[in-house]
Amino acid sequence: MTNFNSSFENAKQLDSQDPLASYREQFVINDPDLIYLDGNSLARMPKVVVERMQKAVEEEWGNDLIRGWNKGWWEAPSRIGEKIASIIGAGEGQVIVSDQTSLNLYKVATAALTLRPNRKRIITDTFNFPSDLYILQGIAKTFGDRHEIIRIGAIDDDITPDLAALESALNEDTALVTLSHVTFKSGYLYDIQHITELAHRKGALVLWDLSHAAGAVPVELDQCNVDFAIGCTYKYLNGGPGAPAFISVNKRLQNDAISPIWGWWGQAKPFDFDLDYTPAPGMQRFLAGTAPMLSMIALETGITPILDAGMTRLREKSILMTDYASYLTDNLLAPLGFSLGSPRDSAIRGSHISIRHTDGYRINRALIEELNVVPDFRAPDNIRLGFTPLYTSFTEVWEGFHRIQRVMAENLHEKYTKQKLVVT
Amino acid sequence: MTNFNSSFENAKQLDSQDPLASYREQFVINDPDLIYLDGNSLARMPKVVVERMQKAVEEEWGNDLIRGWNKGWWEAPSRIGEKIASIIGAGEGQVIVSDQTSLNLYKVATAALTLRPNRKRIITDTFNFPSDLYILQGIAKTFGDRHEIIRIGAIDDDITPDLAALESALNEDTALVTLSHVTFKSGYLYDIQHITELAHRKGALVLWDLSHAAGAVPVELDQCNVDFAIGCTYKYLNGGPGAPAFISVNKRLQNDAISPIWGWWGQAKPFDFDLDYTPAPGMQRFLAGTAPMLSMIALETGITPILDAGMTRLREKSILMTDYASYLTDNLLAPLGFSLGSPRDSAIRGSHISIRHTDGYRINRALIEELNVVPDFRAPDNIRLGFTPLYTSFTEVWEGFHRIQRVMAENLHEKYTKQKLVVT
Repeated sequence: MTNFNSSFENAKQLDSQDPLASYREQFVINDPDLIYLDGNSLARMPKVVVERMQKAVEEEWGNDLIRGWNKGWWEAPSRIGEKIASIIGAGEGQVIVSDQTSLNLYKVATAALTLRPNRKRIITDTFNFPSDLYILQGIAKTFGDRHEIIRIGAIDDDITPDLAALESALNEDTALVTLSHVTFKSGYLYDIQHITELAHRKGALVLWDLSHAAGAVPVELDQCNVDFAIGCTYKYLNGGPGAPAFISVNKRLQNDAISPIWGWWGQAKPFDFDLDYTPAPGMQRFLAGTAPMLSMIALETGITPILDAGMTRLREKSILMTDYASYLTDNLLAPLGFSLGSPRDSAIRGSHISIRHTDGYRINRALIEELNVVPDFRAPDNIRLGFTPLYTSFTEVWEGFHRIQRVMAENLHEKYTKQKLVVT
Repeated sequence: MTNFNSSFENAKQLDSQDPLASYREQFVINDPDLIYLDGNSLARMPKVVVERMQKAVEEEWGNDLIRGWNKGWWEAPSRIGEKIASIIGAGEGQVIVSDQTSLNLYKVATAALTLRPNRKRIITDTFNFPSDLYILQGIAKTFGDRHEIIRIGAIDDDITPDLAALESALNEDTALVTLSHVTFKSGYLYDIQHITELAHRKGALVLWDLSHAAGAVPVELDQCNVDFAIGCTYKYLNGGPGAPAFISVNKRLQNDAISPIWGWWGQAKPFDFDLDYTPAPGMQRFLAGTAPMLSMIALETGITPILDAGMTRLREKSILMTDYASYLTDNLLAPLGFSLGSPRDSAIRGSHISIRHTDGYRINRALIEELNVVPDFRAPDNIRLGFTPLYTSFTEVWEGFHRIQRVMAENLHEKYTKQKLVVT
C-alpha cells in the first residue's frame, strides 16, 4: 500500500500524480462544493450526454419519427451490448442491452434452471442484492416451489462470504450458483474464475450479477468460462437514471437457453408477423419488448469515457483510492467510533467501501442535508462510499472524510431520526 | 356520415371547422411537406418535450444526481399511471407505468392464470398482436404446456373477428380471454363491455391490450368491470420511441393477483433490504426493476396535450377523419385496385384504417422513399394509415391520398421489391 498521510497536501499530490485526473473535466460538475461519493448508485453525467440527448429528441424523434428505427435505434441493444462486452471481457455476440437487471435475472435464471431440469438447488448468498433474491424466490414459486434456495452467509462479520460453506453446499443437485461479483454492501469481490470452476465441476451453471463490477473492476467473462451474467448500467457505466441493463450468455449455451418471456424483439423474424414464436438466434432472443430509446441513447453516450480510459487504468486508480479511503477511515474516523466494513485487501475489494457506525443512518442524513456530501446508507450501519475513478478526485475524498469528522465534532446528526427514501 | 367530396376545398373546410386544429401547433413539425400517417406507431413529438428533456438531463441527472429519486423520479410510475388512468376510465390506484407492453402482458397474464388454477383455456384471436400471442405461448410453455390457446379467426375477411366463434369457445374451462381492444391491422374495435360480460359469465378473467386504443378511443375500464389491461404509450399517447408501457389491474383483484417477476420496485418496503420478498399493496407490486427515467419523463410530458384536449373531442375528430379517409379510399383509390381493409362503421373502428392492395408493400415503400409520405405496412397487403386528431389535419390526409394516386399514376412502386425493416 502507498504511503498515505492525512494531510490535504497528500491528497493534492495524489491528484497531481493521477493519470486519469483530466477525465473529471468530461463530466458535468456544476456544484464544485458537492462531494459526490455515490457514483456506484447513479454516476455523474458525462458532458457529451447533453448534446447527444438534444439530438435524440429534436432530430431523431422530432424529425425522423418512425424512420428512426431504421437509422440506428433497432440495432442499439446489440450495438451497445458489444461496447459493454469489451468492458467485461466477453467476445462478440454475447452481450445485449435490454430491460432492467431484475427482469434480465428473471430471464436467464429461468433459462438456466430449464437447462438443468432435474436439479433442485439454487445457491446464492446473503451478500447478494435483496432484489436478486426476490427474483429467485419468484421463479421458485412459478416453477411450483420445487427448488430450494440456499443462502450462504458471512464468516464472522458482514464483510466476507463463507467460501467454505459455499463449496460444501455445491453438490450434484445444484442447478445454479448466482452471486454478485462485487457485493453491494461490503464491496467484497468474488473470484469469478474460482467459483465458476467449482460450480462447473458439479455440473451447475453460474450466473454473475455484475452491477457493482462492470466499469469498476476488470471482468473476464470468456476467460473465466462464465455461463450467464447480468448487470445494471447506471452505476459505473454512466448510463443515467434507470438506464437499461445488460445480459450476457456464453456462446456455447445460446442455442439451448431460452427466455421464458417470448417477446417480439426476441422473435427470429419480428417483421413477418408470424402468429407463432420462433426464438431468434444468438443474444437477440433475450430481448422482450421495444427498448426505451431515449434512455438507451443516454447509456450509449455515457459509457464513452470508460471505453476511452480502459479498465486497467480505472482499476489502478480505484485500488489506490479505496486504499486511501481505508487509510483515512482508520486514521481519521476510527477514533470517532467508525470501523471499516470492507475488505482491507484490494484483491478482494471492488470500487466502494462501507464505513460502519451505530449512528450510520443519521450521520449519512447529516452529510447529505447539512454538508453537501452524498454517500448512501445500507442497513444496519453502513455508510457506503463509492469511488469512480473517472471523476472522483483524491482531494474530494479528503474533503468528504473531513466533513464526516465535522458531523461528529458538531453533532450534526443528532437531529435526524426517521428513515427516508434512498435508492440504489 | 358527413357529406364529403374529394376536392382540396373540402379538406380545407374540414380543417377550418376543426375545434382541435390549433393543437397541431403544439407539435414539432419541421418538415411541412411530410405527410405523417404513422402516429399509431410512433407519435409526433409535443414541443414541450424538448425543454422538459433538457431539464431532465441538465438539472435532474446533472445536478440532482441520486437525489433525483427523492425529487419525483421514484413516484413517476404511479404519478404517470394516474394520468393514463384518466384517459382509460380507471379509478385511482389502478394504473401504473412499468417496463414494456410484452413484459406487462407476461406479468398480468401469468397472474390471471394463477387466479384460475384449474382452468386450461386461454382465448385470443388472430387479430391480436403477434407479440401478444408469443408472450402467451411462452407462458403456456413455462407452466408446463397444460394450457390450450384458442385463436378466434375472422368472419370472412381480415377485417372482423368471428364473435359467434368467440362466444361459443368461452366455457367453464376458460381461464382468460385476452384481445386487443383496437386490432392492429384492420382497426376493428371490440365492444369491451360486451366481451367482458360474456367472459365473466363463464367465470373467466379478461385482459385487454389497449395499445391502439389508449388516447385513440374512449375506454371505460371501470364501467366495463375489466379485470386487467395493458398498453403501450408511444402510439397515441405521444410517449416517445420505446416509451414505458402501462398496466391496469382492477381494485377487486389487486390483493390476490401477483406478478411472477418479484422485482424490488414491487416489494412492500424496498428500502428495508429484507432478504425475503413481500409484495407491495396495490399496483406497485407489478413494478419490477428501476424505471428508465429519461424515457419516463418524456412520456409524462408527451401525454399532456391529450389530457388537455380530452377523449370526447379526440374521438369526434377521429371518427370524422377515418370516415373521410374511408370516403377518399372509395372515391380516389378503389378505381386503382385498392379496397378498404377496415370496418365502415365508425362504432367498431379505431383511429386508423388499412387500405389493401396486392402491391401494398411496394406502394408503401414508394410513398416513404419517393413522396415523403409515412404510413406503414402490415402483411399481406395492408397499408396502414393512422389518424391522430391532435396533429393530423384534413388537408394532410387529402394530400396523402393524392400522393398515393401519384404513386399509381407514375408507377413509382415498380422498382421496389424486397422487404425492409418496418417497426410497429
